[in-house]
Amino acid sequence: MRGRFITLEGGEGAGKSSNLEHIHQHLSAAGKSVIRTREPGGTPLGEQLRALLLDRSQGAMADDTELLLMFAARAQHLAELINPALARGEWVLCDRFTDATYAYQGGGRGIEPERIRLLEQWVQRELRPDLTLLLDLPVEQGLQRAGARSDPDRFEQEQAEFFQRVRAAYHERAGQEPERFRIIDASRPLAEVQAQIDQVLDTYLAGMN
Amino acid sequence: MRGRFITLEGGEGAGKSSNLEHIHQHLSAAGKSVIRTREPGGTPLGEQLRALLLDRSQGAMADDTELLLMFAARAQHLAELINPALARGEWVLCDRFTDATYAYQGGGRGIEPERIRLLEQWVQRELRPDLTLLLDLPVEQGLQRAGARSDPDRFEQEQAEFFQRVRAAYHERAGQEPERFRIIDASRPLAEVQAQIDQVLDTYLAGMN
Repeated sequence: MRGRFITLEGGEGAGKSSNLEHIHQHLSAAGKSVIRTREPGGTPLGEQLRALLLDRSQGAMADDTELLLMFAARAQHLAELINPALARGEWVLCDRFTDATYAYQGGGRGIEPERIRLLEQWVQRELRPDLTLLLDLPVEQGLQRAGARSDPDRFEQEQAEFFQRVRAAYHERAGQEPERFRIIDASRPLAEVQAQIDQVLDTYLAGMN
Repeated sequence: MRGRFITLEGGEGAGKSSNLEHIHQHLSAAGKSVIRTREPGGTPLGEQLRALLLDRSQGAMADDTELLLMFAARAQHLAELINPALARGEWVLCDRFTDATYAYQGGGRGIEPERIRLLEQWVQRELRPDLTLLLDLPVEQGLQRAGARSDPDRFEQEQAEFFQRVRAAYHERAGQEPERFRIIDASRPLAEVQAQIDQVLDTYLAGMN
């Protein structure tokens, strides 16, 4: 039986890393064989592209370039890791996927969603996430949390208005596909966030039977 | 006045490097300010992508990935170097451009030309080369010449049938746009090849007046 494709999305300071680990453990405890991966990245070539994309010392990167690099890495990720794993029946848990492209390159950079949609269709064909958890919190709070980081990457160094557009685009995506998205209030303390996540996952797993 | 955009195309062993230098000198002698560049590459980011694209130690690269990386590098090349130079009135002489994508990724890898055409339109908008010199020679002869190279890259290590498809795609392109393409018989000795090139360039320069 084909595995499930679960993605975790969210802006800066939403707590993706600790919650990704929590989701992984929850699904493993439920008896699922889970591969954890991330975007951009997930393959040797993808990780090299990730390094280029996040590198602050890059001169101005053209918006088209950024978009095409994201989908180049994604095409490799799908061919080399995601599609084979799902076909083997494994679950794939991915830290960011195409919703992040709509949010960051679409909302943040202002690229027309139609371009993103066409590349999505080409590269992914029928594949869409089965379930997407969106860690949502006010931009100011997220930036305050993320501000503790000493060495921001090329995206993290953007201004608050950029992240407002990112958040708005995430909300729009979630509104368009309510059956796939679960919005998690990430402004709460970690234990409460994880309790929300547990409930979402338990409901999802129960619905599979 | 806007500069002109001249591209040089050709398969393996066609003598692109020495003839590129010859074209550069010819145009400079005619009083043109010429920037010489190449694809994939031409910018710091583009050269990093070139290294990834040619790297033989890459595992299997998905065809979509290869195509998107080519256009990612191209978008950066246009934004950072080609468009500003042409706007300043300089001539740009480029070692391979989008015709090579139709030939290698389209003909060679079998990607549908419609995908390439759409990316071309997005990334280049109205820009097309003003003049394209295609160095053409039989595949066997080209491979024999190139065979002297000790360390083939990821493309050079392909088989003869691949390069037959590349050459056929170049011919198809040239047939579709005869006013832009000039086919140079690159099977002849270098001095004769350069005489053909000189004639093409002189005719082109004379036609500008």
